Amino acid sequence: MRYCFGVDLGGTTVKMGFLTEEGALLEKWEIKTRTEDNGKYIIPDIAEEVKRIMREKGLSANDVAGVGLGVPGPVDQEGYIPVCVNIGWRDLYPARELGSLLPGIRVEVGNDANVAALGEFWQGGGKGYKNLAFFTLGTGVGGGIILDGRVIAGSHGMGGEVGHMTVNPGAKDSCNCGNHGCLEQYASATGIVREAKKVLASGENSLMAEIENLTCKDVFDMAKKGDEAACQVVDRCMRYLAMAFSYVSLSVDPEVFLVGGGVSKAGDILLEALRKHYKSMIHLTDRIADIRLATLENDAGIYGAAKLVLD
Amino acid sequence: MRYCFGVDLGGTTVKMGFLTEEGALLEKWEIKTRTEDNGKYIIPDIAEEVKRIMREKGLSANDVAGVGLGVPGPVDQEGYIPVCVNIGWRDLYPARELGSLLPGIRVEVGNDANVAALGEFWQGGGKGYKNLAFFTLGTGVGGGIILDGRVIAGSHGMGGEVGHMTVNPGAKDSCNCGNHGCLEQYASATGIVREAKKVLASGENSLMAEIENLTCKDVFDMAKKGDEAACQVVDRCMRYLAMAFSYVSLSVDPEVFLVGGGVSKAGDILLEALRKHYKSMIHLTDRIADIRLATLENDAGIYGAAKLVLD
Repeated sequence: MRYCFGVDLGGTTVKMGFLTEEGALLEKWEIKTRTEDNGKYIIPDIAEEVKRIMREKGLSANDVAGVGLGVPGPVDQEGYIPVCVNIGWRDLYPARELGSLLPGIRVEVGNDANVAALGEFWQGGGKGYKNLAFFTLGTGVGGGIILDGRVIAGSHGMGGEVGHMTVNPGAKDSCNCGNHGCLEQYASATGIVREAKKVLASGENSLMAEIENLTCKDVFDMAKKGDEAACQVVDRCMRYLAMAFSYVSLSVDPEVFLVGGGVSKAGDILLEALRKHYKSMIHLTDRIADIRLATLENDAGIYGAAKLVLD
Repeated sequence: MRYCFGVDLGGTTVKMGFLTEEGALLEKWEIKTRTEDNGKYIIPDIAEEVKRIMREKGLSANDVAGVGLGVPGPVDQEGYIPVCVNIGWRDLYPARELGSLLPGIRVEVGNDANVAALGEFWQGGGKGYKNLAFFTLGTGVGGGIILDGRVIAGSHGMGGEVGHMTVNPGAKDSCNCGNHGCLEQYASATGIVREAKKVLASGENSLMAEIENLTCKDVFDMAKKGDEAACQVVDRCMRYLAMAFSYVSLSVDPEVFLVGGGVSKAGDILLEALRKHYKSMIHLTDRIADIRLATLENDAGIYGAAKLVLD
């Protein structure tokens, strides 16, 4: 039996997993992400953790299929990272660097959302499908596309960057990226709250007006209770998300869309709105993609990173 | 040396090509598409032509790598065609049918625009690139996406159906597909003329007003002469096309976009407008896709169909 490591590198913690090649997650733990000095300690810290586990389990390089790494920024097909703002990296090939510290062990790298998509494909909500598009709705909106089991990283690292599709070309508010009307402005937790506040500011009568520090969960909870303004916000935001689904369908036509991230905890109400709008947008065929929830939550990145070294 | 056949099936003619495996087009010819009786003669007609050439050249099945077929309608990954309006087909696996008439010869099928994309990838404007998105602007707008040399047909036959991406969500006019604001309404020859007529109807002063039976070529010619209303139409239509490019980039991020079809004959004026708008829409990276003209014109389908049987 051979083993592999999945590493999900975030701005504050590094989530690490030790797995079998068959996809059983045997151990998981976290270390701090040391972002000081342009993140120069991150790669050595990860290498030390891998070596520690190998030592503890008595494993040699031959027992390890590899170490996969998901990073929070664009990564191109060659594994090059021009810049990774959250952790201070710039102009780096992290897989090569980590590989040089782990002789004889294969190392692969991918964008975190792309890697999470691969995790869901391998062991999560996408199990059994041949291809999928994964949308993660959190503080921002990320995504990943898997075709025939392979991550589509893209020629310039933009593969699956669905959060920045323009879904509302007339928008005046600008996105963090500098563009206007990006999906992220409407389908992220922050975006949904912002849309709700706009509705409230317009004088709409709503239970949401009584909540201090309105959260995205509140908006969905109020919609579940039938609050009309909240329903309107959910409907509008899910319509934008369905629009992005249609763009992905008319590009690569996946079998299934998976929705993950904190916002997806809303569950059925979100899926129902999405399915309704998506169906209304696809006119070329009656057979359309499934829309389902992702299942691995915070472990998707660990699973997917590990899978990077298994093909 | 082995040979292959590329067949580009259209609503009025079947374009056929006889090629070497290396991609030299040795002969090309056309036969009539017999659409009567739900198109039941089409497959036998094609088989007869293949057998005739093999007889004339003294070739056995072993000398033929295969016959590739591009058809004007959606084809899924399994080669299934639910319906192909232009030629009367319904519920068919054309590659299987053609294969049964050509024992020992491999037959593959794909959507015509997807297949043309593969042709451009192999021997046209996409030569030397690893992946591309091809947009063909004619009476309608079709497209095809090639990643790592493979056509992305999609799980429901919608891969590369870029003509039906919603680029103007606020549109009132409806597309042939039943949706509103599809790219095809603005970037096809008919769409560009319709947009020009709208501008004229609004009372805008323009040289275009003097032309009887205004064509898409007229609109571009007037724009080249500096006619302001024509420039405005070209700019607006190319902005919509660039929007669709951005959707494809944020899905699969190709190295290059190729523009073909009759409208692309406008040349530099079209490329310049496209590049300007596309660049303004991509904010995530400075390295963006090239935009170039397709080069094979009406032969793209023959080349691409042949290539289907060569991987």
